[in-house]
Amino acid sequence: MNEVIMGIINSPPINAGNLRKELSRMNMVDIGDIFGELTKEQTIQFFRLLPKDIAANVFAYIETDKQQIIVEALTDNEVGKIVGGLFADDAVDFIEEMPANVVNRVLRSIPAEKRKIINQLLQYPDDSVGSMMTTEYMTLREDFNIIETFSEIRNKKIKGLHTCYVVRRDKLLVGTVSLKTLLLAKEHERIADIMHPNVISANTTDDQEHAARLFRKYGLLSLPVVDKEGRMVGIITVDDAVEIVEEETTEDFEKMAAILPSEDPYLKTGVFKHTYKRVGWLLVLMLAAILTEMIIADVEDLLAVLPALSAFIPMLMDSGGNAGAQTSMLVIRSMALDEIKFKDILKVWWLEIRVAVICGLVLGVVNAARVLIFNPERALLTLVVAITLLAVMVLSKSLGCLLPLTAKKINLDPAALAMPIVKTLADVVALLVYFAVAAALLPELR
Amino acid sequence: MNEVIMGIINSPPINAGNLRKELSRMNMVDIGDIFGELTKEQTIQFFRLLPKDIAANVFAYIETDKQQIIVEALTDNEVGKIVGGLFADDAVDFIEEMPANVVNRVLRSIPAEKRKIINQLLQYPDDSVGSMMTTEYMTLREDFNIIETFSEIRNKKIKGLHTCYVVRRDKLLVGTVSLKTLLLAKEHERIADIMHPNVISANTTDDQEHAARLFRKYGLLSLPVVDKEGRMVGIITVDDAVEIVEEETTEDFEKMAAILPSEDPYLKTGVFKHTYKRVGWLLVLMLAAILTEMIIADVEDLLAVLPALSAFIPMLMDSGGNAGAQTSMLVIRSMALDEIKFKDILKVWWLEIRVAVICGLVLGVVNAARVLIFNPERALLTLVVAITLLAVMVLSKSLGCLLPLTAKKINLDPAALAMPIVKTLADVVALLVYFAVAAALLPELR
Repeated sequence: MNEVIMGIINSPPINAGNLRKELSRMNMVDIGDIFGELTKEQTIQFFRLLPKDIAANVFAYIETDKQQIIVEALTDNEVGKIVGGLFADDAVDFIEEMPANVVNRVLRSIPAEKRKIINQLLQYPDDSVGSMMTTEYMTLREDFNIIETFSEIRNKKIKGLHTCYVVRRDKLLVGTVSLKTLLLAKEHERIADIMHPNVISANTTDDQEHAARLFRKYGLLSLPVVDKEGRMVGIITVDDAVEIVEEETTEDFEKMAAILPSEDPYLKTGVFKHTYKRVGWLLVLMLAAILTEMIIADVEDLLAVLPALSAFIPMLMDSGGNAGAQTSMLVIRSMALDEIKFKDILKVWWLEIRVAVICGLVLGVVNAARVLIFNPERALLTLVVAITLLAVMVLSKSLGCLLPLTAKKINLDPAALAMPIVKTLADVVALLVYFAVAAALLPELR
Repeated sequence: MNEVIMGIINSPPINAGNLRKELSRMNMVDIGDIFGELTKEQTIQFFRLLPKDIAANVFAYIETDKQQIIVEALTDNEVGKIVGGLFADDAVDFIEEMPANVVNRVLRSIPAEKRKIINQLLQYPDDSVGSMMTTEYMTLREDFNIIETFSEIRNKKIKGLHTCYVVRRDKLLVGTVSLKTLLLAKEHERIADIMHPNVISANTTDDQEHAARLFRKYGLLSLPVVDKEGRMVGIITVDDAVEIVEEETTEDFEKMAAILPSEDPYLKTGVFKHTYKRVGWLLVLMLAAILTEMIIADVEDLLAVLPALSAFIPMLMDSGGNAGAQTSMLVIRSMALDEIKFKDILKVWWLEIRVAVICGLVLGVVNAARVLIFNPERALLTLVVAITLLAVMVLSKSLGCLLPLTAKKINLDPAALAMPIVKTLADVVALLVYFAVAAALLPELR
């Protein structure tokens, strides 16, 4: 479909009739995507050619830098109509990405009522439910009958409506009623008699992750948001919940790879921001490696007596790091999905110890077999490595589960803390165990 | 709420009246959760006490092992009612988790029509759209008017209905119409005139990840599924889409930590399954470390001349591994979110090189400062380490972006291949560069 549209745009003069015919068959999201391929001039020209009823809808799906180009080319009146026509949460997302001069112009251009709502939403802390909610929703009064309800729905024209919220005069949320229930109800029935009274809701100040959990747990399509007095002030829709989950997951991925999380997409982040996000942990981990440096310096005389000893150092450190990373990744992800909690710590630890013992035995035997085929004289050193592998598996997998579970318990972020620390500690543990076992078992080192 | 229920259950004889009063205020999901805390006897007893209309709904939210206990305690007739009352996809999920004898009894007990649907769904390949879809949905004919439509909706009693699908006589999907549109339409209007004709749909054989992408891209609440002739056969609901995204994300997490993916929750996986998922990659990575072993064996004479050289090996390997892991994690996640594609490869590489150079300079300077304070005589060695750090950053960050992007391009799984391979290659590169620079710059090694 895009090729047809691009063909029309790229062969001026543009045939507006053909263009509109093609556009009428397309989804708003796909029309928004087209702007990604246009030059600055084409962006303005193409947006002006969009039918008026489509333009405001499409605007929400255009990428930020193109939105800015369009807004700068429009009159105040046009800006007011476009941004005023967005859902409040989309308008807030847009305003948060714009430079100050554009923001001022936009806020000046939109209707006063919308401006008031947007200003309110802008005040909620980032990552709070309040900052994610939209204020376009349908409320009904308990004493409405079906005829009154239908006329209310007709007047309010809420896009994508499927659930209505029942409120008392003081906006206290008391129930929900689905469109299907309304559709099957009789004309004289009252909302209070057909509504579903047990409402799951979130508070404006709740963390957005809490809202996402409610969506997952109860399979919701939308979640009403109330202020601290229980008065309804907005809703979160399921596509917002999906976005929250995605954001939080990306943050977890980043933290586990020793990166400071941010919300900007990869290619929209500059070189210095990218560097800032990564160099801190690289520095910390480099300095943490001083521990391994000190251990090796400490056993320089052992290494001088038996240089073959040093050959296994990278393999032992890597194996410990990998085993610890496996466990901490599984535990951190399972905690994020609410599959395990702090109270399971002993169960998890016991499971990990058993897994570690089997892994350690398998690795030790395979490594011994490999070394003995080529260097049969190294039998005792092979035994040292096997014992070390076993101990390293148990210790690094123990660290891998105990650290994230404990971090969560004391309200530290398990993803940010556990992965890098587990890896560094696993390295240290591998070296300490290796040299201790070697010193104890190898006659030439005594 | 759970405490009240547990109090009633734990003080026999159970007051059934009180229990039902409490239950009537609760969400099905929360009632399902209660079973997690019950003994085998309590499970059966509590399920029998549930009001009939609630029991089937709650059953879908009970954990698998408790479902089995319940089914084994029920009569064939009761089983037929409970499982027959589930959504087809929930029934399939349940059947897939049960042992063969329970499956046979369940299939025998449920109505023939439901059995046929379930048998069909069981045949779709795992991870296909067909295996995730449900067959409870509302279809309308184009020539229906609103009165006919309402009576159809009344007869069919579809739970959670918000969108109706418009089909021709041959079941060909031609449009959608929302309940809100129906509610606002006039009695004589025909479906063909008010329906939305551009339907986004998926095919039964599509990968479930494709369906999840459509949900994300278009912000859908449900997605119709058609067979290869375009006939409608089911729908995917948004909560299923959320589940798909979660499953795929967990798989990515596992692959990146060198773990074979599986769908079982952490605590429901046995020791041997856990070991099987992890020991393979640990073995491969251990054997890959032979490369580092060979490199170190090769430069044993260098290390003998200057033992201080070996002190920096762990730090350099770790820094390379961490830098590569940062980049590959960012790139893999951005690909999963469709933020970057193969065509961006040069743009990404150029960005990573610049980030790597700055990171390399910062790490080199900090490390040099640290070493020179304590060992001013090591100035030249410090320079070697700084140059190595710079080269290692550039090379490992290059590997970190080029490998996953290329893997994806040739249809290999970037998450499974890239992370462990990037780490091992980064180790090898770090050692090679280090010894080459040392041999070139340090007079005592010439």
